[in-house]
Amino acid sequence: MKPIKPLDAAWLYVDTRETPMQVGCLAIFSLPPKAGPAFLKKQVETFRSTREFVYPFNLRLKAPRLRFLLPAWEEDRQIDLDYHFRHSALPQPGGERELGILVSRLHSNAMDFNRPLWECHLIEGLQHRRFALYMKMHHSLVDGISGMRMLARILSPDPNSRTQLPPWAVGARQKTKTREPLASPWQAALDGMRVQLKTVPGVTRAFGDIVREAVRQEEKDWALPFSGPRSAFNGKISGQRRFATQHYSLARVRRIAKAADVTVNDVFLEICAGSMRRYLGEMHALPSKPLTAGVPVSVRPADDQSAGNAISFIIANLNTNIADPLQRLRAIHDSAQAAKLHLQQLPKADMDNYTALFMAPFMAQLLSGLGGHLRPMFNLTVSNVPGPDQTLYFNGARMEQMYPVSLLAHGQALNITAVSYAGQFNVGFTGCREALPSMQRLSVYAGEALDELEQVLGIGAPAETATAD
Amino acid sequence: MKPIKPLDAAWLYVDTRETPMQVGCLAIFSLPPKAGPAFLKKQVETFRSTREFVYPFNLRLKAPRLRFLLPAWEEDRQIDLDYHFRHSALPQPGGERELGILVSRLHSNAMDFNRPLWECHLIEGLQHRRFALYMKMHHSLVDGISGMRMLARILSPDPNSRTQLPPWAVGARQKTKTREPLASPWQAALDGMRVQLKTVPGVTRAFGDIVREAVRQEEKDWALPFSGPRSAFNGKISGQRRFATQHYSLARVRRIAKAADVTVNDVFLEICAGSMRRYLGEMHALPSKPLTAGVPVSVRPADDQSAGNAISFIIANLNTNIADPLQRLRAIHDSAQAAKLHLQQLPKADMDNYTALFMAPFMAQLLSGLGGHLRPMFNLTVSNVPGPDQTLYFNGARMEQMYPVSLLAHGQALNITAVSYAGQFNVGFTGCREALPSMQRLSVYAGEALDELEQVLGIGAPAETATAD
Repeated sequence: MKPIKPLDAAWLYVDTRETPMQVGCLAIFSLPPKAGPAFLKKQVETFRSTREFVYPFNLRLKAPRLRFLLPAWEEDRQIDLDYHFRHSALPQPGGERELGILVSRLHSNAMDFNRPLWECHLIEGLQHRRFALYMKMHHSLVDGISGMRMLARILSPDPNSRTQLPPWAVGARQKTKTREPLASPWQAALDGMRVQLKTVPGVTRAFGDIVREAVRQEEKDWALPFSGPRSAFNGKISGQRRFATQHYSLARVRRIAKAADVTVNDVFLEICAGSMRRYLGEMHALPSKPLTAGVPVSVRPADDQSAGNAISFIIANLNTNIADPLQRLRAIHDSAQAAKLHLQQLPKADMDNYTALFMAPFMAQLLSGLGGHLRPMFNLTVSNVPGPDQTLYFNGARMEQMYPVSLLAHGQALNITAVSYAGQFNVGFTGCREALPSMQRLSVYAGEALDELEQVLGIGAPAETATAD
Repeated sequence: MKPIKPLDAAWLYVDTRETPMQVGCLAIFSLPPKAGPAFLKKQVETFRSTREFVYPFNLRLKAPRLRFLLPAWEEDRQIDLDYHFRHSALPQPGGERELGILVSRLHSNAMDFNRPLWECHLIEGLQHRRFALYMKMHHSLVDGISGMRMLARILSPDPNSRTQLPPWAVGARQKTKTREPLASPWQAALDGMRVQLKTVPGVTRAFGDIVREAVRQEEKDWALPFSGPRSAFNGKISGQRRFATQHYSLARVRRIAKAADVTVNDVFLEICAGSMRRYLGEMHALPSKPLTAGVPVSVRPADDQSAGNAISFIIANLNTNIADPLQRLRAIHDSAQAAKLHLQQLPKADMDNYTALFMAPFMAQLLSGLGGHLRPMFNLTVSNVPGPDQTLYFNGARMEQMYPVSLLAHGQALNITAVSYAGQFNVGFTGCREALPSMQRLSVYAGEALDELEQVLGIGAPAETATAD
């Protein structure tokens, strides 16, 4: 038996029918040259006969019904592989649309808390000689970034290698030490959660105090928590998800960033902003105040003597009230820069507190528990995760794209996460089915927002990537 | 707004992650002669564009979170059809095994209580030019038998008819008046449930008293409630299901019944008993005491002046301790006959009470809440539902088989339900994934138990049905 760390256990506390706390990864592969249907059949057989389960695939909850009081993992020595590994197929015509629909459904289904909290789906019937792998894990076991890394670990850069094993036989590295919160308010909030989920006002007030104290700032560019408008993305959510994807060449995004003298992340935020402005405008639901995004960033605290950077959060102003794309991009850049600067001026202890609270999985839940009387902490999460640089293969099958499939919470009906992979910028849109009708349009508009930036900057797509994309 | 009847609402009260209270129906069709892939494409398009929703497909819960206090339906005027109608496909080789696995998964997934509680899945990729339709509905909307009838209503006996609409545009007849319980103990139990789900001992005691008083009997053949042994089928269940099927010619079953001078239902009970004896024996888990089955039967109460029969329940002794199939068949017949006779001698009011309590969906749940300290009321449900006599078609596609997919409760990890259809006897086995490993064997053994009966009775399968089967 192994107690679950409070930060990991928190994902179990807030897992409900409406907010299953699971993260996913979708990878699309091409069959190796000359491979026929026998290739997939063989992979399925290998998957079914691989019964070695390494960390964290071998862990299950010790007492699922008591997970609030006694969160602990134990090793499951009798794993029912046929439950976890699932062979699926797409109906005709087997395009990206059918794949998106299937992944939406699979990602909406709750997991069985009596078993190790993961599923692996091998999906056949994808047109143009392709197949897909969709992995789903509970966030208490792995976070989205680690999930991506885990996928990369099972693959090989060598197209001739044929020794790749299914994910559960490769596993993840043991979790690197989570940044544990240092100060007591966080622990008090967590203890409060555990004892009584209903004591919302107290916890919320504590959170507000800490954030206000931690950021202690006056400048205008920094988007304050709770300063974003109410929007279609910030109500209670239901358990059904939509999922859509887009992929661009990274060279295009970089070229735009260079031409506009901003970062790749700024360009990403801009195309999200442009897309949302148009999508909400069509729904006659664009708030007059600009939307804000919670964005994970890499920073170094003012008094940190250690070598590495730390991951923290900023709230960026998406400037969705600005119609001009270039002006919007510059405004987003300014907002993100100001937020990062402020964050970097914080002492390490304050930043740790601040970060822990932003990452607290249940805060959004708690806030929405107030019945929508509060403004959202921020309107949506936009995140950009570095992925593998090299082209990777699974037993000779080239991975064409990989996409994150994210989780949502009450008050956060949309998550946009990008991952870079072998010269590509792959974007996964995860939304609540009710809050985001026709969410596909949001992803299409993001692509068109990228085109638009190239146009206003007077640069075309580089020739070498126009074909690759 | 329309209040939900207490008996229907009860299914909502006991719906949990482990015990989703949904019933299903699986129908297998052959493509019409000469029809190509365009046929299914056209059906999918018609399904997607049919946006007329009739009773009960247009109903959703008025306040899903308050369903315990205020169970009421309201009409949903903005139904998201793409959520309810799902186009799916089987992976290679697309046989009965792959279909069974997909249906098991679909039947395990919980429904979204914020929407009308139904799903319709059109499944392509079934080998030998076939496809399947799987319908799933919450038991608060429709019971298994009505579900079967509803399926039959959307079909046509005319292979040339091309005017069949999807189920939601045809609907069910408004529920015929449920036999409302007459006496107060039932209502008291239900009220108790509603106010406080935890007052188990009181309700259980009341139930025991009523059953004892109602059946008031001494004879040995009648299997008493709670007289069955504890078995692998009677623990707490988890939310995952297995589903397996078998189909025989009805003529074979009838011929055996005639040769042994028993009923078709007795033969059905016997092959279930023979199969379970072998299955549990292989698991070294066959109780020395015989298993018992709760069986819906058609009876007429002693003082009933009305024309029709009533549906009530008997508990039949499955005599799984007897090795000889013919001896077992005769013993099952005697037990079922004795139980029906006793039931028929009851005055109508007592029978109504007795029936209502047997049908109470939450009794098994309550009993299992006692932590397995009580014996099960009976070991499993075996039910035999009359279906359509004629061969039926959906826009020219012949329905080959139809199967019920049932619900389970704590303490009831296995349900075997048969439905007759156009000279066939189609059996659906629905089991809890944990309690019934390799459940497929149970269905195979049932087929072999039928062969065995023919052998010991010295009758072969009639030539005309051996090919049809």
